[in-house]
Amino acid sequence: MPRDTFERQLGALKTTLLELGARTNQTIAEGLEALKTRDRAMAQALIARDTEINRIRYQIEEQSYELIATQQPLASDLREIIACLMIAIELERIADHAKNLAEIVLHMGNEPLLKPLIDIPRMADICQSMLTQSLDAFARRDALAARAVCLRDDELDNLYKQVFRELLTFVIEDARTVTRALNLLFAAHNLERIGDRVTNIGERVIYAVTGQLEELNVEPSPVAK
Amino acid sequence: MPRDTFERQLGALKTTLLELGARTNQTIAEGLEALKTRDRAMAQALIARDTEINRIRYQIEEQSYELIATQQPLASDLREIIACLMIAIELERIADHAKNLAEIVLHMGNEPLLKPLIDIPRMADICQSMLTQSLDAFARRDALAARAVCLRDDELDNLYKQVFRELLTFVIEDARTVTRALNLLFAAHNLERIGDRVTNIGERVIYAVTGQLEELNVEPSPVAK
Repeated sequence: MPRDTFERQLGALKTTLLELGARTNQTIAEGLEALKTRDRAMAQALIARDTEINRIRYQIEEQSYELIATQQPLASDLREIIACLMIAIELERIADHAKNLAEIVLHMGNEPLLKPLIDIPRMADICQSMLTQSLDAFARRDALAARAVCLRDDELDNLYKQVFRELLTFVIEDARTVTRALNLLFAAHNLERIGDRVTNIGERVIYAVTGQLEELNVEPSPVAK
Repeated sequence: MPRDTFERQLGALKTTLLELGARTNQTIAEGLEALKTRDRAMAQALIARDTEINRIRYQIEEQSYELIATQQPLASDLREIIACLMIAIELERIADHAKNLAEIVLHMGNEPLLKPLIDIPRMADICQSMLTQSLDAFARRDALAARAVCLRDDELDNLYKQVFRELLTFVIEDARTVTRALNLLFAAHNLERIGDRVTNIGERVIYAVTGQLEELNVEPSPVAK
């Protein structure tokens, strides 16, 4: 098959991936919004839409195999196709974390929030911005930009630790707040995990472009120090 | 290149993968042992050995690309090679979770455990057993066995919820126990995450053998119900 057919098929694969990325990014925004407004209907709608995201991710997997099998791509093209495959898996899992925000909303029922949301919306903003940047870096084949995204994960880790410490003071002061504190902690935890997954995407972009594997995503420290 | 050369190279790739699997399994055992005995030297040794695991995982990535590029494998072979690539990533992350157990040991210093370890060693046992079974299933190309492993993840999730509820009663009774409770909770959390990653391996084995993608690993519920 001629080179331009391959380019076209690879382009189609990347377009599908970027579409999945846009949908995934939307789930983060909606998960946060449902949490802020305690909108159960919005939370349920978000959970229901997860099936569609899973479907697109499977489609990308199939498309990638098809492309490898029919086009027999060499090194750099192969890395790019495998990157699509792996980024799709990360995106699907990011959407699962956003879905978890919706699950928290359903779980909380009508009990008031322990405190106004300040750091959690900032975390969600950073997640969305990092995700957009990582996918842009992939689209433009820009390893430097991908690396910059990975380094931003520290911002999220620091905010998570701050949320953690703040919630701890509530619990130490009054142990009866523990359940409400944990709901917010789990929300922050899911956003922190999204940051890790975006970092995985960044690493994958670097590898696709340069052929160098770097481990920039260290699993977060198990204990808040 | 003739078929038997390909078979030999694929066999070598799988051998490397199974070696990585054995090392990873060992890290779970050692992480638990360090936690039980509060052995800081063992914890530090475990952390130091992580570099070697990362090295093998990169080697598998390179070997997989090489095999795809030189052998141009078709559908089922391709799925098997990609499975090696993806399982290696999961193994490396499982080892990171085991390393987190060691980090907890270092973090705890000399403070006594909040309570004797009962469910956490059971969780570690289940993790090790699931990991062994998932890699056996891959080696034997046994999709049924892989599916059975995935279903065992519920055992871990239930134990994690049990640990969570138990620790919560300590904290509600005496808020000053919160830090020690969190150390144990994070240990259990890391084991629960290992179960998720083994489930990812199981799904990957099913896909390698059958060509069917199934999502058996649902991200754990964000809230302990």
